[in-house]
Formats: sequence, C-alpha cells, structure tokens
Amino acid sequence: MRRREKAVSSSPLIALLTDFGTRDWFVSAMKGAIFALAPSSRIVDISHDIDPGDIHAAAFALMAASASFEPHTVFCVVVDPGVGSSRRAIAAKAGDYSFIGPDNGVLSFALRSLLPCRIHSIENDDLFRKPVSATFHGRDIFAPTAAHLANGVSIETCGPVCTDAIELSWPEAKRDSRGVQARVVYIDRFGNAFTSITAETVADCGPEALIQAGAHTIPLKRYYQQEPDGALLAVVNSSGYLEIAVNGGSAAQALGLAIGSPVVLIEGQKH
Amino acid sequence: MRRREKAVSSSPLIALLTDFGTRDWFVSAMKGAIFALAPSSRIVDISHDIDPGDIHAAAFALMAASASFEPHTVFCVVVDPGVGSSRRAIAAKAGDYSFIGPDNGVLSFALRSLLPCRIHSIENDDLFRKPVSATFHGRDIFAPTAAHLANGVSIETCGPVCTDAIELSWPEAKRDSRGVQARVVYIDRFGNAFTSITAETVADCGPEALIQAGAHTIPLKRYYQQEPDGALLAVVNSSGYLEIAVNGGSAAQALGLAIGSPVVLIEGQKH
Amino acid sequence: MRRREKAVSSSPLIALLTDFGTRDWFVSAMKGAIFALAPSSRIVDISHDIDPGDIHAAAFALMAASASFEPHTVFCVVVDPGVGSSRRAIAAKAGDYSFIGPDNGVLSFALRSLLPCRIHSIENDDLFRKPVSATFHGRDIFAPTAAHLANGVSIETCGPVCTDAIELSWPEAKRDSRGVQARVVYIDRFGNAFTSITAETVADCGPEALIQAGAHTIPLKRYYQQEPDGALLAVVNSSGYLEIAVNGGSAAQALGLAIGSPVVLIEGQKH
Repeated sequence: MRRREKAVSSSPLIALLTDFGTRDWFVSAMKGAIFALAPSSRIVDISHDIDPGDIHAAAFALMAASASFEPHTVFCVVVDPGVGSSRRAIAAKAGDYSFIGPDNGVLSFALRSLLPCRIHSIENDDLFRKPVSATFHGRDIFAPTAAHLANGVSIETCGPVCTDAIELSWPEAKRDSRGVQARVVYIDRFGNAFTSITAETVADCGPEALIQAGAHTIPLKRYYQQEPDGALLAVVNSSGYLEIAVNGGSAAQALGLAIGSPVVLIEGQKH
Repeated sequence: MRRREKAVSSSPLIALLTDFGTRDWFVSAMKGAIFALAPSSRIVDISHDIDPGDIHAAAFALMAASASFEPHTVFCVVVDPGVGSSRRAIAAKAGDYSFIGPDNGVLSFALRSLLPCRIHSIENDDLFRKPVSATFHGRDIFAPTAAHLANGVSIETCGPVCTDAIELSWPEAKRDSRGVQARVVYIDRFGNAFTSITAETVADCGPEALIQAGAHTIPLKRYYQQEPDGALLAVVNSSGYLEIAVNGGSAAQALGLAIGSPVVLIEGQKH
Repeated sequence: MRRREKAVSSSPLIALLTDFGTRDWFVSAMKGAIFALAPSSRIVDISHDIDPGDIHAAAFALMAASASFEPHTVFCVVVDPGVGSSRRAIAAKAGDYSFIGPDNGVLSFALRSLLPCRIHSIENDDLFRKPVSATFHGRDIFAPTAAHLANGVSIETCGPVCTDAIELSWPEAKRDSRGVQARVVYIDRFGNAFTSITAETVADCGPEALIQAGAHTIPLKRYYQQEPDGALLAVVNSSGYLEIAVNGGSAAQALGLAIGSPVVLIEGQKH
C-alpha cells in the first residue's frame, strides 16, 4: 500500500506551522508522532503563534518561509478551525516540496507560487495514528502523514486526486490610471505591513515611486535606517514584496492597516 | 560506576518540560549540557511556558504529552519552585519511558498512568555538571542525568530506590446519586477546561449526557464546530478526557473555571 | 576559496540568538538556510525573544549561554538594528567556539570572557545566500556563514582581520572605600537583576556581606527559598554573578532596576 517514490534522504526535513501556541504540549505531541514514524527526521518550527484560525496569515507565512528550505522538505500546516467537521485533509507536491494540511486554503499561496502542483485527498487511514481523535488531527492525521511522505511514501498513497482544493484569493496587484492597486497580505509582529506588490513591479515604477496607504504618502527606501526613528517608509523586503514600515515602530498601528487593507503604488516622476 | 542497561538507540529522544520561559537562555543551557554528554540526541520541547511553579499543570501536560512519544524517550521536567532547598531529585522508569525531575509530584500523574514504576533518588554526583550551582539544577543535575539515562546508564546508577516520592492527588471521577463528580485538571491556552472524567466514563453515560459546571448545563458533542461560535459544549478530547469548551472562545473565562473546579457528568435520559 | 580548518564533527552544533520573536517565520528561514548548507547540523535556540534591538541584553545572554556548550559550537547572533546600513558583519574564534554577528558589540561580552580571540570581517559573498536582501541578513549572510564555519570553513575565508570591532563597555566591579561598586547587567523574565559582581568578589566579602540597590539593603543567601515569599535577597547565580531577586516576585520591579542601575556590595562585619 505504501509505495516509495524515490530514494530519499536518510534524514528528512519536516517544517511545522500551526496556531497551537507554545504553552501547551500540543506541538510536542505532533513531534512525538513524527519521530515515532520517521526517527531520523530533522524538524523545524516555522511558527506556532499564528493567531488562532488566521488562515490568511498562515498561508502567507508558509509561502514566505518555504523559499528558504532545501528540496524534499515536507511542510505540515495545522491552522484548522474546522477540525472534526467534514473538511478534507490534503497533501500536495509542488516545486520539489511536499505540503500537508487541511483543505481550507492555507496551502494555496505556497502552491500558487510553485505551480504546477499535484493535490491528493488524505483518506488512507493506514497512514494515521490510531485511534484518530475528533479534535487533534495535527497529531493523528497531519503529522503521521507528513512523516510517511518524508519517509518516501508517495502522495498517491494518501488518497484520490483532488481537483477542487480551496484557494484563498490572492490580491494580485493591478495597474490602472491612478497607479498599482494592491492590498496588505501580512502583518508581522513588528507591525510591518507586507503588500501584494512584487519587487518586479516596484522596479518598474522607479526609485522615486510613492506608496499611498490610508491618507499617507510614503517614500520608497532600500532599508529601514534610511529614515529617522518613527518615520514611515516602504522597502522591498526579504520575501520580495513591498512592505510598509515605521523605523522602530509599527506601521500597522500608525496607519490602521490589516490584512486586506488597500494600498496604491504611484510611479516616480521622470525628471 | 555507570552501568549500561541495554543496547540503546544511537539517537536517543529527550523531551523537556519547564517553566523557564523562552526569553532568557536557560533552556538552551540545558540543551547545551545534554548535547555535551549525548551529542546525537534528538531534543523535543514539550513546553517552557508552564506558569512559574505550576506543578499541577506541568504534571498533567507531561502525562498527556508522553502518550505520543516512542519507547525509550527520556522526559526531563524542571518545574521546581524548591530549587536549592532540600527537596530530592528523582529518576523513574515506567512503561518504556524514563522520567527525571524534582520530587514535588510533577512526575506523579505520568507515572500513575503507566504503573508499575521504579523510582530512584538522584544522588550520584558523578552524573552532574560541575560545579553544581544552587539555583540552576536544570542545567547542572536534571539535564545531565537525563543525557546519561538516554545514553543507556541505568537508573540504579542515579542513587538509592525511593519509595516515598511525593504524589499529587488525582481527583478520580466518582459516581454518586447525582452523577459523576470530578474536577478540572488542566486549562489550555484557549481556555478549554480538561476534567478528570475519562472517555470510558463518558461512554457509560451515553450520548445524551450533560455536564454541569458552575450554574451551567452543557451538552456533549463530538467536535467543537457542532455548536455555533460562542456556545458552550463538552467533548472527549484527544487526551481521552472530557473537556469543557466554548467554540471560538474560553470556557475557563466564561465559567470561571480553574484547576480544581468541580464538575458533574449527568447520565443521559433513556427514551 | 573555502579552506577547511580541521576535521570537524559530522553533526556540528549551531546556536541561534535573535530578537526576531517566534510569531513570524523569520527564524525558520535562518534554519532552512543553515540546513541547506549543513544538513546534519544540530540547531539550538538560545532565545528569539530578546527585546527588539537590545544589544546589551543579547550580549549578556550570549556570554551566559555559551558556557554550557560543547567545543566547536558556532553561535549565530542577529540582534541588528542597523541591518542594511554600513555596519560590518564579523566572525570570531575564541575558546574553541565560533561566533557570527553584526559588529555592534553584541558578541563582545562573550569574546571578552574567552580571550584571546581572533575577529574577521565577513565580506566574502561566496559564503552568502543569493540574492542578498537589504533587510534580512540573518537569512542571507549570518546563517549561511555560520553553516560554512560549522562545516569547517576557516574564519580567514570570511574576510580580512578586524582589529577595531565595537565593544560594549563592561561595568567592571570596582572596590572603593564604601564597598564594591558595580551595575546591573541583565534582567531575566522573572525580574531577577544580574549584577557585574562575580562569585569571587562575593566570596572575598564573606557570607555576611550586604548589597545596596536603590534605598534597599539586601542580605546574601545561597538560594531563593532561604527567604520568605516576597522578600528581597541576593544570591550568586548559576552564571557566576551576584543576582538580586525577590523570592516569588520581581526584584527589577520592586526596586526599579534596569540594565545599568548601580549596586554596591558591602563587606560583612568580622565579629
């Protein structure tokens, strides 16, 4: 039943992203379940402090984090407000990576950035930890399935092809007569607001470009310390997106930004 | 002096549970001390965010987490408000696991769930990191002893048999004419209140059973989303205990529950 | 270009200290970058919850943590408010350890405690992850350089010798007619205030010594529980420094102490 897909590392890498927090033992139960099946795994925590149920934030964090990981990493994501209900669990292969998570869109930004991808439903309970609880699929379904994939089990083994996985809507930046219209897609713990405007689009608009957010017009800089403490600025950040920041402060708080807030990039004047 | 008990994994698993928090370097000092003795260990954090000195919460978390770990895991627990005083340190073997911690009851729920167990005092300072400080036994006594056990050193090597280790009182659920009387044994970070009522007892009371906590009567469900947001419900949770929850909220806050609060399970009406 | 310095462990140990927090994916991006270059590394988190930009706290934490780690550990520190500006990155060898970080003094307490040391600028972009972003040198410069050193690349490979690295001023305890004058050098999450007075100096002053901080005179004890709950006391702590504490409370809050606050140790009366 469990087909090996190819020769795999003797020490697979599994990255975890959840909203479980770190106060209780929940994450460790997932790790115990992984090591029980894949004892030589290396496990990396992406974050366990996603706001409970914040699927959009987790989807962005997964996409941004995955870019730093080696081929064959298995990403196991449990931000799953629908646990126990009839929502599906899915496994996906894209760009040399494997992804495991609930079918609620939380994998969709990462998969979209790595197309093409193959998605399968996770239905083969041979892969699960028994008994399967109604409330902790992280330990009983997602972690063991991730461990099996890390061991070289193929995603076909998980279950049938899934062609209708839920996708979150990505607010693609769009150029109109007033500039490039986009949205905030992530707020980090410092209050930096990541937008859906890519580095390429920023480059097209020139170094004199300005960013409008709320009632503010914000200059484009290369790094935070180019502006004095407390000043608003925008930078192309390390994830390749335009980010609105306050040097030493919180742009989200200063401007009242949240995921989904609109922003506009205005082309620099040619002199 | 250090006898090997049996062939052991070349990569032992050591799980840590403390109230040290994650802001300072204290947990890393334990890990450094472990790797210095058992360089090929795999180390898993159960939690370091137990409320300072909350022995009851740590005891439950240890019991609940341990169920997910492979045989031969060594659990090293440092929730130790008495550090430096004359309280003993103990090592225990139970159910293929080893446990290390202060003799203040923090190991007792896990050991009780895995009987029989053997307990020894940790007195053999050959096992310790030198010099032993008066305030950081986690680094100097508990972590090194855990590393030695992980390496295959026997618990007899730690010191003499201990027959009077401190046990926390487990509030065993008791049936009387009004129903099953029990208590809250853990509150997780979402405010879910774990009770001492087991899945077996819940099954005996039937699917129509009701739970009384404070002035509230709460219905039994299979998973959180069976009730609307904000509604009270009870589920048998992934640790095998009846849990009182609010879908999307905090039951502990809504009902004023704390560890030790009484709850009653009332048998369902037969129609 | 990349010279091997010596035979190295097949599983190098890399310890990370940052102010990135644990809510976002930033630390995991560093770990992904490390594993991509040094797949068999063991990675330990010292802390990621240093207050943003608190170079003094990070410098002390690094010094205190490093004492527990095995030879050849590589410490990678990213508390770097000047990221993207012209501040240098440096690599250092001292006492069997390697250190990587920004040249802002954050390594200086650890290096000072392990003299002699050799310091090199990190300028060889063969070692970096490409493209190098302007805002995330943790992932693109510090983590990859740490991985290369862990793999046995020599620090000479990083760049030219650096003889003018920034050093934080260590408030050396000084004896005058009124006693030993010193300062607070770290506050832990419990509010314990670490001073720059060493165990040796405390021993010289005898067991009847008293500590003055603000308007308070505080007795010297061996461990916290020698005083009742809520009482002020001082102990020689596990890092080898005199620490002012409140049993079960926060000395920093009770006395209004911060890093830099003055304290005086007064010799015990000979009877």
